[in-house]
Amino acid sequence: MPQSNPQPTIVLIRPQMGENIGAAARAMWNFGLDRMRIVAPRDGWPNQKAVAMASGAGRLLDEAQLSDDTAGAISDCSFVYATTARPRDLTKPVFTPEAAMKDVRARIAAGEKVAVMFGPERAGMENDDIARANAIISVPVNPDFPSLNLAQCVLLLGYEWRREAVPTESSRVDAVGDWAEQIEIEKLSQHYEERMEEAGFFYPEHKAANMKLNLRNLWSRMPLTRADVQMLHGVMRQMVRWKERG
Amino acid sequence: MPQSNPQPTIVLIRPQMGENIGAAARAMWNFGLDRMRIVAPRDGWPNQKAVAMASGAGRLLDEAQLSDDTAGAISDCSFVYATTARPRDLTKPVFTPEAAMKDVRARIAAGEKVAVMFGPERAGMENDDIARANAIISVPVNPDFPSLNLAQCVLLLGYEWRREAVPTESSRVDAVGDWAEQIEIEKLSQHYEERMEEAGFFYPEHKAANMKLNLRNLWSRMPLTRADVQMLHGVMRQMVRWKERG
Repeated sequence: MPQSNPQPTIVLIRPQMGENIGAAARAMWNFGLDRMRIVAPRDGWPNQKAVAMASGAGRLLDEAQLSDDTAGAISDCSFVYATTARPRDLTKPVFTPEAAMKDVRARIAAGEKVAVMFGPERAGMENDDIARANAIISVPVNPDFPSLNLAQCVLLLGYEWRREAVPTESSRVDAVGDWAEQIEIEKLSQHYEERMEEAGFFYPEHKAANMKLNLRNLWSRMPLTRADVQMLHGVMRQMVRWKERG
Repeated sequence: MPQSNPQPTIVLIRPQMGENIGAAARAMWNFGLDRMRIVAPRDGWPNQKAVAMASGAGRLLDEAQLSDDTAGAISDCSFVYATTARPRDLTKPVFTPEAAMKDVRARIAAGEKVAVMFGPERAGMENDDIARANAIISVPVNPDFPSLNLAQCVLLLGYEWRREAVPTESSRVDAVGDWAEQIEIEKLSQHYEERMEEAGFFYPEHKAANMKLNLRNLWSRMPLTRADVQMLHGVMRQMVRWKERG
């Protein structure tokens, strides 16, 4: 079956506190993931604390698939990752979140069904469950303080998923109104130069050319909108008026 | 002054709940950031709830610099980013976390002192404070559910900082023990082929060559350790023993 809105399934294995399940749902939906599966939640299901915490992402909990065991939760998936902080005594490929989500995207594009498993709070994943995974995802945390909680792990993977899946301009400048055109910058430049000339700013004489060049360069290197240019004209006109009032 | 362990300074502006300040400290230290400044925390300072939440990252709170206002907190910085979810009516460069942390790294390498500002919970940053920033960082969240909390924002920026600053292999395979050498794979292959030949597995005759090729390929495409190879030999030997017992 072709997937609409293709994405990895998030599998929470034996989560303990409802609040953490709710926080994980929020973290998923923050980055557009909405397929959750839950294996044997400690406090049963549904869980009111999960619902309260998930506010706004409650739909994910309503639609979450429950399983009694890990094998049941991932039975229809062709590739499964286990997220874990500590290396284990298991030979297994280990990916950074970034490399893992690149891999997920490629697999999903090829029609694979992919799941990312997260272990219970504190204890983390058991080796039995890790052995079911095709690969491990390890977040490159500070080795002196590697304590990420469940929702934080989900958040980081969700972030990487969206970073991979949704192309975003890496930087842009949001202009309020139009950018000024070169002729407007040129006129601004002239306005200031003329007034500053009158005011005796370009002194001593042998430095004047360089001072004018620097002033001109200052305007052109600033990304100015039309409104900025008008304001700068206004500043100078006001100084002249103030001077003329004596 | 050259910085030891160069990094951006994290500035929390008018944070409200102590728990969130503590959680932000944890998120920073998870990714190796430990320079925090706090502007006018609502509930005063020090804050016991912050200390309780920060467990393990309490040193950041002890060493945090307090300021009465934003200008005071960033006075010694040459480049300042404001993190904000919503676009504002201010003309300003907008970076993704990734692009921002690349920029931060370049600036720090050039000797600049850089700060990243985070606004209060709920309200987010005020325009007065955003106007003090040289650029904006915007996390590419799901537009239908953009609600990141303070510590989550700090976590994502910290993650990107570390991803930029600390080179990590994007993927590797952790082998427990040594990888098998080709000669060991070859012997394993032969062992299986001989026994399966005895057992009458390669049938019908005209398909035998292809079946052998596929079996051989199966072993060579699996990344096997020496221990794996020994175990696979053991499996086959045991099957033979079992057969011989009748």
